[in-house]
Amino acid sequence: MASKPIATLDASLIPRLPPSAPTLFEAKKAKNLSFEAIAKEVGRDEVAVAALFYGQSQASPEDILKLSQIFDIPYEQLESQLSGYPDRGRTMDMPPKEPLIYRLYEIVQNYGYAYKAVLNEKFGDGIMSAISFSTKVEKETDEKGDWAVITLRGKWLPYSRF
Amino acid sequence: MASKPIATLDASLIPRLPPSAPTLFEAKKAKNLSFEAIAKEVGRDEVAVAALFYGQSQASPEDILKLSQIFDIPYEQLESQLSGYPDRGRTMDMPPKEPLIYRLYEIVQNYGYAYKAVLNEKFGDGIMSAISFSTKVEKETDEKGDWAVITLRGKWLPYSRF
Amino acid sequence: MASKPIATLDASLIPRLPPSAPTLFEAKKAKNLSFEAIAKEVGRDEVAVAALFYGQSQASPEDILKLSQIFDIPYEQLESQLSGYPDRGRTMDMPPKEPLIYRLYEIVQNYGYAYKAVLNEKFGDGIMSAISFSTKVEKETDEKGDWAVITLRGKWLPYSRF
Amino acid sequence: MASKPIATLDASLIPRLPPSAPTLFEAKKAKNLSFEAIAKEVGRDEVAVAALFYGQSQASPEDILKLSQIFDIPYEQLESQLSGYPDRGRTMDMPPKEPLIYRLYEIVQNYGYAYKAVLNEKFGDGIMSAISFSTKVEKETDEKGDWAVITLRGKWLPYSRF
Amino acid sequence: MASKPIATLDASLIPRLPPSAPTLFEAKKAKNLSFEAIAKEVGRDEVAVAALFYGQSQASPEDILKLSQIFDIPYEQLESQLSGYPDRGRTMDMPPKEPLIYRLYEIVQNYGYAYKAVLNEKFGDGIMSAISFSTKVEKETDEKGDWAVITLRGKWLPYSRF
Amino acid sequence: MASKPIATLDASLIPRLPPSAPTLFEAKKAKNLSFEAIAKEVGRDEVAVAALFYGQSQASPEDILKLSQIFDIPYEQLESQLSGYPDRGRTMDMPPKEPLIYRLYEIVQNYGYAYKAVLNEKFGDGIMSAISFSTKVEKETDEKGDWAVITLRGKWLPYSRF
Amino acid sequence: MASKPIATLDASLIPRLPPSAPTLFEAKKAKNLSFEAIAKEVGRDEVAVAALFYGQSQASPEDILKLSQIFDIPYEQLESQLSGYPDRGRTMDMPPKEPLIYRLYEIVQNYGYAYKAVLNEKFGDGIMSAISFSTKVEKETDEKGDWAVITLRGKWLPYSRF
Amino acid sequence: MASKPIATLDASLIPRLPPSAPTLFEAKKAKNLSFEAIAKEVGRDEVAVAALFYGQSQASPEDILKLSQIFDIPYEQLESQLSGYPDRGRTMDMPPKEPLIYRLYEIVQNYGYAYKAVLNEKFGDGIMSAISFSTKVEKETDEKGDWAVITLRGKWLPYSRF
Amino acid sequence: MASKPIATLDASLIPRLPPSAPTLFEAKKAKNLSFEAIAKEVGRDEVAVAALFYGQSQASPEDILKLSQIFDIPYEQLESQLSGYPDRGRTMDMPPKEPLIYRLYEIVQNYGYAYKAVLNEKFGDGIMSAISFSTKVEKETDEKGDWAVITLRGKWLPYSRF
Amino acid sequence: MASKPIATLDASLIPRLPPSAPTLFEAKKAKNLSFEAIAKEVGRDEVAVAALFYGQSQASPEDILKLSQIFDIPYEQLESQLSGYPDRGRTMDMPPKEPLIYRLYEIVQNYGYAYKAVLNEKFGDGIMSAISFSTKVEKETDEKGDWAVITLRGKWLPYSRF
Repeated sequence: MASKPIATLDASLIPRLPPSAPTLFEAKKAKNLSFEAIAKEVGRDEVAVAALFYGQSQASPEDILKLSQIFDIPYEQLESQLSGYPDRGRTMDMPPKEPLIYRLYEIVQNYGYAYKAVLNEKFGDGIMSAISFSTKVEKETDEKGDWAVITLRGKWLPYSRF
Repeated sequence: MASKPIATLDASLIPRLPPSAPTLFEAKKAKNLSFEAIAKEVGRDEVAVAALFYGQSQASPEDILKLSQIFDIPYEQLESQLSGYPDRGRTMDMPPKEPLIYRLYEIVQNYGYAYKAVLNEKFGDGIMSAISFSTKVEKETDEKGDWAVITLRGKWLPYSRF
Repeated sequence: MASKPIATLDASLIPRLPPSAPTLFEAKKAKNLSFEAIAKEVGRDEVAVAALFYGQSQASPEDILKLSQIFDIPYEQLESQLSGYPDRGRTMDMPPKEPLIYRLYEIVQNYGYAYKAVLNEKFGDGIMSAISFSTKVEKETDEKGDWAVITLRGKWLPYSRF
Repeated sequence: MASKPIATLDASLIPRLPPSAPTLFEAKKAKNLSFEAIAKEVGRDEVAVAALFYGQSQASPEDILKLSQIFDIPYEQLESQLSGYPDRGRTMDMPPKEPLIYRLYEIVQNYGYAYKAVLNEKFGDGIMSAISFSTKVEKETDEKGDWAVITLRGKWLPYSRF
Repeated sequence: MASKPIATLDASLIPRLPPSAPTLFEAKKAKNLSFEAIAKEVGRDEVAVAALFYGQSQASPEDILKLSQIFDIPYEQLESQLSGYPDRGRTMDMPPKEPLIYRLYEIVQNYGYAYKAVLNEKFGDGIMSAISFSTKVEKETDEKGDWAVITLRGKWLPYSRF
Repeated sequence: MASKPIATLDASLIPRLPPSAPTLFEAKKAKNLSFEAIAKEVGRDEVAVAALFYGQSQASPEDILKLSQIFDIPYEQLESQLSGYPDRGRTMDMPPKEPLIYRLYEIVQNYGYAYKAVLNEKFGDGIMSAISFSTKVEKETDEKGDWAVITLRGKWLPYSRF
Repeated sequence: MASKPIATLDASLIPRLPPSAPTLFEAKKAKNLSFEAIAKEVGRDEVAVAALFYGQSQASPEDILKLSQIFDIPYEQLESQLSGYPDRGRTMDMPPKEPLIYRLYEIVQNYGYAYKAVLNEKFGDGIMSAISFSTKVEKETDEKGDWAVITLRGKWLPYSRF
Repeated sequence: MASKPIATLDASLIPRLPPSAPTLFEAKKAKNLSFEAIAKEVGRDEVAVAALFYGQSQASPEDILKLSQIFDIPYEQLESQLSGYPDRGRTMDMPPKEPLIYRLYEIVQNYGYAYKAVLNEKFGDGIMSAISFSTKVEKETDEKGDWAVITLRGKWLPYSRF
Repeated sequence: MASKPIATLDASLIPRLPPSAPTLFEAKKAKNLSFEAIAKEVGRDEVAVAALFYGQSQASPEDILKLSQIFDIPYEQLESQLSGYPDRGRTMDMPPKEPLIYRLYEIVQNYGYAYKAVLNEKFGDGIMSAISFSTKVEKETDEKGDWAVITLRGKWLPYSRF
Repeated sequence: MASKPIATLDASLIPRLPPSAPTLFEAKKAKNLSFEAIAKEVGRDEVAVAALFYGQSQASPEDILKLSQIFDIPYEQLESQLSGYPDRGRTMDMPPKEPLIYRLYEIVQNYGYAYKAVLNEKFGDGIMSAISFSTKVEKETDEKGDWAVITLRGKWLPYSRF
């Protein structure tokens, strides 16, 4: 895993991101650190940390401190850029044009009603929360090759009766 | 789980579905069977079976035989309706309006770039296949309540170099 | 209030609704009952009952029983049409074309970021649930005329840290 | 409430906002004031003040004076940026991508026809004004946790007969 | 004016209209009456009557009585079709494809900001109501030919201060 | 009327406008002149003048001269910015998000077919021109309050027979 | 030219067309007549006649008489279907999917501004009318093959000064 | 014709155009030349030259030489900006908002199927090329006023049989 | 290859297809013939034949004769349904929702500019015709598995100079 | 082939591309090299190299070295701009406006279902990969002129059964 190049920021995306995004991605590139490595230091999941870099997840004061230490960025500078409430969802237009992200969208498009039917039968009328929610990415390898495994785990919220 | 009502078909969706969908859903309702129960009989995952009911997954001859036995539908009738190649993706317009399905869409919208960054760092340049792919839904319960866990598992496909 | 005509169903909307909708609206028209009157009998809020008529809210077995009694519809018929899980959100295209509904949409469009800023400051990073949620409509009258008051009350869901 | 960080402005939103928005948000951040605190000083509701910051609500001369005092901004500078008529509605694209704001949109999408039916029965043919209108956000706490309560109050406008 | 053929209903529009629309338009065609003639009998403006035919305006009990008399349609039949609250705005997709209607849309597109600036200077911050509103169409003729004059008259609604 | 603040330009609109727009609006603000006052000097209707400021109407050499005198702008500078042919319609996206302009759009959406039917009956098959066209805004006041009256006057163009 | 098959109506288009369209196209097919042949009889251009068949052009009483004679359709039947005012523009969605029609759309997309610049220089500020307008299609053949020549001829309408 | 002002470039269009566009339009304005005059010098049609100015048509080396001579622009500078392959179609969004260009779009929308039917009958199954294509604009004047005549001439391409 | 089930028609697609499509697909299903087998009989490529079944390609009189023989359908019936000019492109909405077709769309989205650059360098300014065009599908198998090879072959059309 | 001008970058596209794109295209222009020539040096297909220039294909360290040598760009500079994972698909909006690229889109639109039917019959239920994929462009010349031949070759991926 270590041998893969790290993810960097496509500059044409910057106008859609908060100022913290180029700050953090530049520091990540300078230190040549993967999200896995950063996540270990910060003590959070690597998807959450990547989301934080893209302005899609909130940083706690402890996160900011850790990031300032990892990247040798003055705490105040990072705090000023990261302390707000994320304005989520604006990094991309839907449907996603990026093939990797489109595949996830396609899964929702194709299996959406199937998920709904199975979830309703298991839990009743409600939704799986995307807020009280966590997710992770794992790699499995077998004789057929590598497999990506994405887990979505969300609190079940039943509709209120009123 | 057995106490939840089973999923049925909203009739206003029928014009977007193949003729097999109302056939199967009516039989399911008449027999009052959950997808979990049907899936056990058919020997496939319940999400795959639900997708098959919505015309989003192909039925093998064995699946058709099993379904005809479970629902007492003549094999020929079911075979005629189910033997084609699914024309996937037309059950709904995007963005999804159904709150349950929208939450999945929102996860893609918010975490799309984070997934891409983490997957790229773990696997290199490529995508997680949505075709060489399986998925499942599980229920977990802890002191905070119920949690829905959706697992997506797809073959990693690296871009060809040419 | 009693002197206002009751709400009926525009037939051109039927293809977007479940079969229960024309059944219920025809019965409502035949009995000339307002949602307020029906809601009192059913023991739920009138907005929830109207949503149920439009297929946007689930009916419990008790609701079905009450509705079958109020409207003299055989329980089995109503149960067959109402027992499924609602497929919400498909009654209209957005932006809404109906002026009354558009005004609500406009409130979201104009005050959306203001609501977010105030809610974030009061509650932190999260959302107001639209699922663990109730709403009601009230009428107030003062010297300037009549005022409609819509209350939205949703559980605050903080983002999970992961 | 005081312990929550205050809301700040995501810089990527600036091109969609009037020049008063970054001026006011920077001052707010420098003074570390919540909208609740500012609203108390200005004598208006905190949602209205937040809307004013986003260019969605008009400032009266008194508002401008108060804001210039609170933030130590020269009156003339603020007056020059705030004295125009707001060009409302351009801060975001619809459907909203931000999960918090989307939930409000979803409420309109799901309950729109139910609101219309109930409002029509209570008031007749007309609309709830979004102009002769006020709104507020409140926090309630019970044993289940925190609840956000949003109240929309608009003048009822009957259609003119002509 | 009498020599122009009367307006009839394009049958391909029927699925977008309430059932009263084909009833009324067929009767209009059978009686060969213009909207001007019908409006005189009903005692309303001809645009309002045309809007009523298209399901865009509410009929009072007196309107229904008058229409049943003019067209020899049983009162009960008409009452059943017309007594609901109009579900406005769904007769066409925007932008309008019909050249006549497109020209009105184009006027809004081209002069929208100019109207706003002039109205704001004349009335302050607010809107011209489209609900507390009337409109009429007139014909003027001079040496250059015929001129259509459309008048829009709406109540000015100032934004509430809150 | 004189007591209302004058209309100014929202800077976030500048990228959609020709360079003459900020030039003219800044001068208008500096001189604190309403469109009514400018229109009197120029000898045109105030809506036309506002449209000219937004780049939606052409300036004649006389208009340019008058504007250069009113605002003490060198004739050559203004002539260079205003002498082209307007590229109309790009100031806003449709549907309009601004509530004031949306109300006009809604009138077209709701009454479009009614206007068409009445116009066809009065004039035959054709359109009301939006080019050979003038418009004006008036204020009326009665015991119910203020009313905005917008008049649209366009040449009737019959379809050519060929 | 006579050897080319005649144009017929794709049945999947019927829901978008007035009832006269299938009537006329069926008669055309039964008589095996080209639009050129019909146009000669009716005394109009073949594009106008084809537009009339698609409900995009109005039929005069003389046209209806001619068509009833050509196709042996009772005058009253045709008169009933054709006497209304065309509801133009709804035969297709834009952008056109049909390759032949798309090419015309592409010409507008690519040469739109060039046409505007040249027309403005030749005529001043205004538009070429699409109403006071005629068009024709011609075939030219040279050594390179066949050429289609479409001529658009519209009245120049200068913007009114007001 | 000479008395009409020349066409210039709306600066707000520049971000959608290649760098050659402002270069050429500024030179055109400085020399006060019409496209007709430039076209005569270059030896091409004025629509083609206008298209070239908007980056919608390719310049040959001879064109570049001529343009550099007409406008006293160094050949190398112009060659560097004009020598690429045009990236056509991005100057505007469709549907066109400019009224003049919209009229052309409307002609395609209204007469599209009529053109297709007539062209098919004259030529068989195929399209009129928009590539092997030329166009021109002419002015005609009669007692009714001025008429714009646009001619589209394209190679007929029959579908290949395979 | 013979062991794969044949392609059939998803009934929910029928409203978007000409009447010939269900006729032909039903016959194909009854005879259990692959497009490869039909194409051999007809003497055309299998993609062309499949396109013909979907109403996207024209049938010659010989094709109709062959198809009537293969499927034992009366020539007149088939001739009546197939003799028109195809109204291409309406079988699906874009972007395609079907994963197989989406992959082709994605290739255009990702490689579009690369194709343009390479084609321009090889051929100059122009396009590859999609009309004077043929295509085929082939299967290749190597140690890595099966490969689909799609070949697009179109006439190069240089832009006319005018 | 050598006589055709090389492809260059339209500057108005730069905001949609990564920083490597202008770097590489400027170097290409300075050296006046075709993609064919560059591809030979790099040892990859010219479409892949063009895609790399547009940020649609990943560069290996060897590619970066070759490109730095070909263009005399310091390795570090190029490495810094090219080492990330491509964010594919954002160079253009769909449907493509460029006529050359639109033709490819049209092929998908018109032949999409035909390809699907033929591919399903040859391979079963699955897709042709656009990731495990290569493509090339060739030129053929016969007595009718030049032909562009585009070959798409992708791994067949059958749907997993689960």
